[in-house]
Amino acid sequence: MTLRVLGVDPGLTRCGIGVVDIERNRRATMVAVGVVGTSAELTLDRRLLVIAQAIDEWLDLHQPDVVAVERVFSQMNVSTVMGVAQASGVVIAAAARRDIPVALHTPSEVKAAVTGSGSANKDAVTKLVTKILRLDAPPKPADAADALALALTHAWRAGNGTGAPGAKGSSALTPAQKAWAEAEAKARRAR
Amino acid sequence: MTLRVLGVDPGLTRCGIGVVDIERNRRATMVAVGVVGTSAELTLDRRLLVIAQAIDEWLDLHQPDVVAVERVFSQMNVSTVMGVAQASGVVIAAAARRDIPVALHTPSEVKAAVTGSGSANKDAVTKLVTKILRLDAPPKPADAADALALALTHAWRAGNGTGAPGAKGSSALTPAQKAWAEAEAKARRAR
Repeated sequence: MTLRVLGVDPGLTRCGIGVVDIERNRRATMVAVGVVGTSAELTLDRRLLVIAQAIDEWLDLHQPDVVAVERVFSQMNVSTVMGVAQASGVVIAAAARRDIPVALHTPSEVKAAVTGSGSANKDAVTKLVTKILRLDAPPKPADAADALALALTHAWRAGNGTGAPGAKGSSALTPAQKAWAEAEAKARRAR
Repeated sequence: MTLRVLGVDPGLTRCGIGVVDIERNRRATMVAVGVVGTSAELTLDRRLLVIAQAIDEWLDLHQPDVVAVERVFSQMNVSTVMGVAQASGVVIAAAARRDIPVALHTPSEVKAAVTGSGSANKDAVTKLVTKILRLDAPPKPADAADALALALTHAWRAGNGTGAPGAKGSSALTPAQKAWAEAEAKARRAR
């Protein structure tokens, strides 16, 4: 059985979208990746419409089992956070309209899941996403890699909630699992 | 010629929606008003779906010429601002899908337009909305009155951009127009 996850790194200027198939043995394969960009010269309604239409197309084309969206924090840069939240609302509602489950993951959960460290930088995430998905080149821009990382994170967490492939159980936590558990606890506190 | 404006005071817990017809002579008549509430016990995707479906129904039923939405500020209460922004994104995208123009107005613009003071309280807004629309009783909750106030604000501003009915021009500003101009200038600075 393969789980298909569509990950979204929401944003008005660039909205990263990535689709990944994850097999029961946790092997992950990239199906598609892309970025939808909108110009700041457009009005907000036009920008959100472009994003809404793109998400609709991706959902219709790839028919994911679940949609994973980055959880937006109000601690972000105030000049961009409202647009990010509005875009995420559009994406989440589009999935809900199709009765596709939506999962939210924090940036630190994603970093921990993919790199083993909840405080990894964007380069490290991109590098590991490239390796995990056996890609010839790193997905660009970073928003595209982040969308794939979100999809991977969701699939692995949904699988057994403990970590990346190779995780053996909670009695002997790997560094990645430990970082993950810490990131999760932190995210829970922040909710 | 009558302008039909659908105003929305976005929110996850309560989303106020109000439809107003405004004649050329600025006489305004309420067509419909309501509040869509969602429980905090629902997941975010279910909550946004309820709002999306409600907005779709209102847009289909009332066929407004324009949708006026409260402009969300990141200075709001951080625990609610993300949900408000996500709900507003869903509303704005729903209008954009139907090619209905969307206008955003700040709370101080609305207060200034309806009461003459950009710093009026909610009670004053409700009271004047009730009077302007010749309603038998004040619309409740406040979110419903706010939605109607947004619709009125948009129609009046779109009309000549100077203020409420009775405005004579910018050479002799009434107190309401002055407050309005100040609120606008403030809003522009905040953008």
